[in-house]
Amino acid sequence: MDVAQILHMRRGDGEDSYAKNSNVQKVIICREKAGIEEALEAFDFNKMCEASESFKIADMGCSSGPNALCAAKAIVDGIYRRCQGLGCPSPELLIYLNDLPGNDFNMLFQSLSSFKNLNGVGGECFIAGMPGSFYGRLFPTRTLHFVHSSSSLHWLSQQVPPDLEKKAIRALNKGNIYISKTSPQSVLKAYAVQFHKDFTSFLNSRSQEIVPAGRMVISLFGRTGDDPTSPECCQQWDLLAQVFRDMIVNGLLQEGKLDSFNIPFYSPSPQELTSAVHNEGSFTLNRLEILEIDWDRVTSSETSNGSTKTILDNQSISQSTVKFVRAVMESLLESHFGREVMDPLFRRHEQIVCDHLSRNRNNKYICIILSLTKT
Amino acid sequence: MDVAQILHMRRGDGEDSYAKNSNVQKVIICREKAGIEEALEAFDFNKMCEASESFKIADMGCSSGPNALCAAKAIVDGIYRRCQGLGCPSPELLIYLNDLPGNDFNMLFQSLSSFKNLNGVGGECFIAGMPGSFYGRLFPTRTLHFVHSSSSLHWLSQQVPPDLEKKAIRALNKGNIYISKTSPQSVLKAYAVQFHKDFTSFLNSRSQEIVPAGRMVISLFGRTGDDPTSPECCQQWDLLAQVFRDMIVNGLLQEGKLDSFNIPFYSPSPQELTSAVHNEGSFTLNRLEILEIDWDRVTSSETSNGSTKTILDNQSISQSTVKFVRAVMESLLESHFGREVMDPLFRRHEQIVCDHLSRNRNNKYICIILSLTKT
Repeated sequence: MDVAQILHMRRGDGEDSYAKNSNVQKVIICREKAGIEEALEAFDFNKMCEASESFKIADMGCSSGPNALCAAKAIVDGIYRRCQGLGCPSPELLIYLNDLPGNDFNMLFQSLSSFKNLNGVGGECFIAGMPGSFYGRLFPTRTLHFVHSSSSLHWLSQQVPPDLEKKAIRALNKGNIYISKTSPQSVLKAYAVQFHKDFTSFLNSRSQEIVPAGRMVISLFGRTGDDPTSPECCQQWDLLAQVFRDMIVNGLLQEGKLDSFNIPFYSPSPQELTSAVHNEGSFTLNRLEILEIDWDRVTSSETSNGSTKTILDNQSISQSTVKFVRAVMESLLESHFGREVMDPLFRRHEQIVCDHLSRNRNNKYICIILSLTKT
Repeated sequence: MDVAQILHMRRGDGEDSYAKNSNVQKVIICREKAGIEEALEAFDFNKMCEASESFKIADMGCSSGPNALCAAKAIVDGIYRRCQGLGCPSPELLIYLNDLPGNDFNMLFQSLSSFKNLNGVGGECFIAGMPGSFYGRLFPTRTLHFVHSSSSLHWLSQQVPPDLEKKAIRALNKGNIYISKTSPQSVLKAYAVQFHKDFTSFLNSRSQEIVPAGRMVISLFGRTGDDPTSPECCQQWDLLAQVFRDMIVNGLLQEGKLDSFNIPFYSPSPQELTSAVHNEGSFTLNRLEILEIDWDRVTSSETSNGSTKTILDNQSISQSTVKFVRAVMESLLESHFGREVMDPLFRRHEQIVCDHLSRNRNNKYICIILSLTKT
């Protein structure tokens, strides 16, 4: 499976699009704002202005739709506010929006005029797209001042175990699509090793691209403790695997198809992240923050005090949850299982999520935010 | 008419797409290569390498499809060859592919992997997309070393005369869609003034973005002499206007629709270009070259000695000519006349071009190539 060629959030702005089903990711971006503002305090914008130096920003894994510009907007607003505080004009800004080549850049670029109108103060702000995998080099050496990445680094660069197409390997994670209570240690290890390798590649590529003392604020789905089979990181995928197993029992899917698929996704622990940063050696970790986001939030917008007021029924939450999973996962699932499987799959998924919610309403997504400085 | 929001070459890679019908533009890029190589000789790549400075290139109006990367490839190959000659490694390259936000950037970005494989030598080559109109600022101050633009600067930023929606103004260019033998002086003047304004904006924006002694190689459709109504620049649009007039006579189109449309396109003379460069004042004109390209070339590929060997019948040429015009013009025509008009329009167009060819096989496109240095 060539993840970089296949993976993309569901395109367009239809009912099932990522644009319309990415509320959780929006909540995360909102919660990153304080960390972004803090990181921006490290820069001497006054000096940059005097030297006519432009400030270069990259948002890695920006996707498309309404969230795609949220982070960029938060960063630009933060810079304008900081410059106002310093009593200096803002330097010229150059923002690179990065995602895989399959991302809907057409939609993204057509939404840029609204972004420019939203700001309309301070120095000129130029916006480019940078297609490619952030697990490799994307920019010339020492060009970026600030890097941001939200809800993206949990995607692995490839499926694990790497030799999953071999029959003997397939049997290892039988009936599952991710780490599960029934997965053997070798599968757990393969996932952890791949994540460590990918995350280290990310850090190493950025360490070459970021100027000394440059900053990064990144967030990704994760877990709070050491156990990679805990519900906080596996529940969602366990429910989806259950749908696939039901479809096999009902003769709608071949068993081999399921056994040769593992999601290229990993929820690391805080400990795994801090040790990867330490081992790679190019960055100082300033802060690590853990967010718990209730599954209910998939349907509701962030309010000004960070809490939601509506109490939702199980059916609404399961509908929204399935749309959220579909918008994110469909490109990978369709490429492996075929287009014809998608509609029946997600119909059943909705029922199974609803059944789960009737037994257990206490479900959380865990998100980890890291703030780093290039040494 | 908001040209920047509407204009784009026909998307995708279908039979009628720009990707499949842009042979003339390809011929032009091939003929630019000598000028590009010559311009690259101005740079001290050795010094850039020693200073770990990256070389930044912008291709303005790159479009999508097979031509979109032709110029970038010619520039990168030229740099690698030059560095080889100098016995130094190539600096890191950053190429910005620019076009209007409506361009098919998705298709463009998905074709990048083939580009990277084609080169595979020298320093790392990074490729970004930069959406926006090149008649305004696109990049921070003094960031670009080399700017290229092929077959794009003949597009105006807006329709002329600017107040064409007014009834009295409409009557001025009755029955035409461009400058024609029957157009009054005021229409000729409005076109010339708008071109001068747009071209000056282009030069002025680039003069701020290009480093001192940076270079530009640009090409656009034009004419050889002073007369803006000569067939070499008006013939193609005269034939298209004839189709519209036929459709009005046959009750297929309202007269007012035609009278309120003028193509936002201009074929300047060498004199107009040199005086615009001189008046703007930021660039030295090193060279101006005039290419004559036979209409036949719309169907045939460039051969190694620059000539074609096949003799084509009128029907083949008219079919290809109409596909070429449609791929380029459809977004503008559809936005003004409506989608339902497009198929009947281009069916009739083919017949009219064929009739014209039976009377006159000596038809040329004129292309002007400029080589400039930032002072």
